[in-house]
Amino acid sequence: MNVHHLLSDVASESNRIHHSAFRNKIVSAEEAVQHIHAGDTVAISGFASAGTPKAVTPALADRIRRSRASGADFAVNLLTGASVASDTERMLAEVDGISLRMPYQAEPTARRSINAGSMDYVDIHLSHVAQQVWEGYYGHVDIAVVEVSGITETGELIPSASIGNNKTWLDVAEKIILEVNSWVPTAMAGIHDVYYGTALPPHRKPIMLTAVEDRIGQTTFRVDPDKVVAVVETNARDSASGLTPPDAVSQAIASHVLDFFEHEVSRGRLPADSLLPLQSGIGNVANAVLQGLDAGPHKGLTCYSEVIQDGMLHLIKHGTVRFASATSLALSEAGIDELVSNIDFYREHIVLRPQEISNHPEVVRRLGIIAMNGMLEADIYGNVNSTHVMGTKIMNGIGGSGDFARNGYLSMFLSPSTAKGGSISSIVPMVPHVDHTEHDTQVLVTEQGLADLRGLSPRRRSRVVIDKCAHPDYRDALHDYVARAESVADAGHTPHLLGDALSFHQRFLDTGSMRL
Amino acid sequence: MNVHHLLSDVASESNRIHHSAFRNKIVSAEEAVQHIHAGDTVAISGFASAGTPKAVTPALADRIRRSRASGADFAVNLLTGASVASDTERMLAEVDGISLRMPYQAEPTARRSINAGSMDYVDIHLSHVAQQVWEGYYGHVDIAVVEVSGITETGELIPSASIGNNKTWLDVAEKIILEVNSWVPTAMAGIHDVYYGTALPPHRKPIMLTAVEDRIGQTTFRVDPDKVVAVVETNARDSASGLTPPDAVSQAIASHVLDFFEHEVSRGRLPADSLLPLQSGIGNVANAVLQGLDAGPHKGLTCYSEVIQDGMLHLIKHGTVRFASATSLALSEAGIDELVSNIDFYREHIVLRPQEISNHPEVVRRLGIIAMNGMLEADIYGNVNSTHVMGTKIMNGIGGSGDFARNGYLSMFLSPSTAKGGSISSIVPMVPHVDHTEHDTQVLVTEQGLADLRGLSPRRRSRVVIDKCAHPDYRDALHDYVARAESVADAGHTPHLLGDALSFHQRFLDTGSMRL
Repeated sequence: MNVHHLLSDVASESNRIHHSAFRNKIVSAEEAVQHIHAGDTVAISGFASAGTPKAVTPALADRIRRSRASGADFAVNLLTGASVASDTERMLAEVDGISLRMPYQAEPTARRSINAGSMDYVDIHLSHVAQQVWEGYYGHVDIAVVEVSGITETGELIPSASIGNNKTWLDVAEKIILEVNSWVPTAMAGIHDVYYGTALPPHRKPIMLTAVEDRIGQTTFRVDPDKVVAVVETNARDSASGLTPPDAVSQAIASHVLDFFEHEVSRGRLPADSLLPLQSGIGNVANAVLQGLDAGPHKGLTCYSEVIQDGMLHLIKHGTVRFASATSLALSEAGIDELVSNIDFYREHIVLRPQEISNHPEVVRRLGIIAMNGMLEADIYGNVNSTHVMGTKIMNGIGGSGDFARNGYLSMFLSPSTAKGGSISSIVPMVPHVDHTEHDTQVLVTEQGLADLRGLSPRRRSRVVIDKCAHPDYRDALHDYVARAESVADAGHTPHLLGDALSFHQRFLDTGSMRL
Repeated sequence: MNVHHLLSDVASESNRIHHSAFRNKIVSAEEAVQHIHAGDTVAISGFASAGTPKAVTPALADRIRRSRASGADFAVNLLTGASVASDTERMLAEVDGISLRMPYQAEPTARRSINAGSMDYVDIHLSHVAQQVWEGYYGHVDIAVVEVSGITETGELIPSASIGNNKTWLDVAEKIILEVNSWVPTAMAGIHDVYYGTALPPHRKPIMLTAVEDRIGQTTFRVDPDKVVAVVETNARDSASGLTPPDAVSQAIASHVLDFFEHEVSRGRLPADSLLPLQSGIGNVANAVLQGLDAGPHKGLTCYSEVIQDGMLHLIKHGTVRFASATSLALSEAGIDELVSNIDFYREHIVLRPQEISNHPEVVRRLGIIAMNGMLEADIYGNVNSTHVMGTKIMNGIGGSGDFARNGYLSMFLSPSTAKGGSISSIVPMVPHVDHTEHDTQVLVTEQGLADLRGLSPRRRSRVVIDKCAHPDYRDALHDYVARAESVADAGHTPHLLGDALSFHQRFLDTGSMRL
């Protein structure tokens, strides 16, 4: 090993490692994964498309594949920030390399394994991951694999394009493999704010963050060099987040959202100039809302969210957005180039934080977040299903939507009113899986319109949801359901016919369409 | 009016009003309610059995009754802290005096009106009430009726036995009626901590409360004397919270909870001496847990909850509990006597706060609350129904359970495994109403056992929930459901048969029992 370390040191390809204790540990990815064993709990960096380890995870998949080919069982528990680069998730899923997955995924191969029951998946709020791992709910964390963009002379780590749970992984893991990625611009250093003040109760203190742009931490991760068992050098682009231009449906949804903001401003419920900090999920609808804001009257907006997508860069460039806080840069190829080419500018308008802070209930409540998240479907009373197609098959996971919806100031859920060419209605009598309860949803939006449920009892909600949000093709069937449910004796506060409540979904399973 | 004020002043029966601006406004309850008009939004004091106005609300019910007798329509929107003294709720419901009710109720007459659709009811998290009313989601608050125990020389108000939303009502209401209740011991003054630091975003600051006993506010309410239109003097006991001794089922549930605490201590996940601050709902199960703690090894425990019941007084007296924070004293007759007779002692161990703070997500998260709440039923995947019998008929409301479960450290839901003599199973394939999602429930407890769901995927959860918590009479049917749901092709992450998922409930509606 000593000989090898010397060789590696000489072979260092970049000038990113400024501390000898780490230079001495440079090895190839293939050598690094020898530290990972079957049954290990492996915590890796990565949040959305940014910051996933680029060399060690493929090498791990390869090792597992070869191990399986030789008849040995080899799988690990995989903990991440959220989704990771989808080729990584796919490679590990294809070799049946993951026995337990937490807390979020968005990749077809892994999704198939989860839905087939061959991969255990635990779908928890992203703000809960750090404390639950600290508490040991997922057992001992054997090893962390964390991408960084450099190592300072004092042995601290400069993060790359996402932070996610990396601080926690470095703290809790028994062993650490670092990937030092020289593709990340050195000028990105300083964009990060890593807060070291969280603790387990009874030792928690107030998190003194009162504005989106506040810095409360340091720009680097701390690490115990003795835990670092390998350092791997890479020079590899982040994978790109796909992006298609907003279509007419997305633009219609966005337009209802923007009208609603003006309505709230006119009632004195939102500050006229800068509204309140915006959170939005990933996707075309979210991008359409951002585009709409860019064309609107507001300047100096702020965002407090999980990911920064291309649209946000435009808004920052135009001054529409003054400051954006997130935990990851989930950009397209073009977005990555835009960021990298103008990093000195963007570093003044963007901060990346641990997801423990980007999604923290204390901060979300205090800042008064306007939470805008996608959904699969909502029912007539405002319960929202974000995760389970037909109640059983998981799509991705709840992610941070509950962190923002539950503690935010305005909780909005957005979706086209239909899916699968109109054969699925996004407004149903009863959702077969609830991720956000009627108590936590205030506004539903489809391209048809916006249902403002604040202050409404269930019987008033059902009318508003159907008339404002349901597709016209499904309104009669929904009104008919309500009429029949309300007509029975003892109909109750929230009228339902249990025999019919899931009939839309059953019909889809039976006929391929929710239509009558 | 001037003559009348002079007479009233002379007629003042107590020595509780130390400011002339208020003495000059003393009137009878019948006169006071002339300030309340049909269609008004009326915000009254009261949280559980404590602090409900005792003279003005009956006078209002009487006024509405007479008004209706003369053919006029008369109803108000009624905002409270949570439930209020049940005779008050009943009197107003009996005369159809409430058109909209918010945020919680627990009284049979009102419940019938809500379930019949004749009273609008909005069931929201108790921590959300203040901000939503400030924002105007319930329109203009025309008048507040608030019980206090005295008025100081500087014109501030000494609270009575609950705080609830009183601070907010006094701030937002256009007009105010005060009831000064001389039954409340003067020695109770000082037990309260009224925090005036909350604000609407973007003006929110950290709430600097880091321990259960911290005082961050003042002992009195502020009020604009110009808004006070009437002062009514009373000398009336709080209504008593009923209490029956814990039965064998409650004791068995408590015993599982206590064993779990020791298990967590042994794993190093709870501090061995004082655990973490406890929150528990109202009821016999909660009382049984407290009794069990009183007989156990822990001393110096703390509680951060909504209400203090009789059991808590015993624990404080014995030193088992060092300090308890709440927003209301919901005591039995004997409990009231115990408190009043030893108020100087209890005042050193109890603080009452606004419910905005007792239930605040920021504080709940920071303190690391162990949340123990009752439930109606849970499903095999851990979704919890706290509010709707058979999915349609509301029982009470979500209250603060979501405030604590969603942001707390350990989220536990407790219930006997059956109801109605065994004809209802509290563990079902799918709950027909979700108040707490699978993402927010960690531990389910019945007298049968305790299901620890932390870190488990849905397919693992179903086995644990059935085997640990379901009544033996229902286990086979539940296992059969799981087996059939998992056996279909493409069973999914969370297997369900939509045609059978609500069959337990449908069977109960059809036959009066969930049994096959």
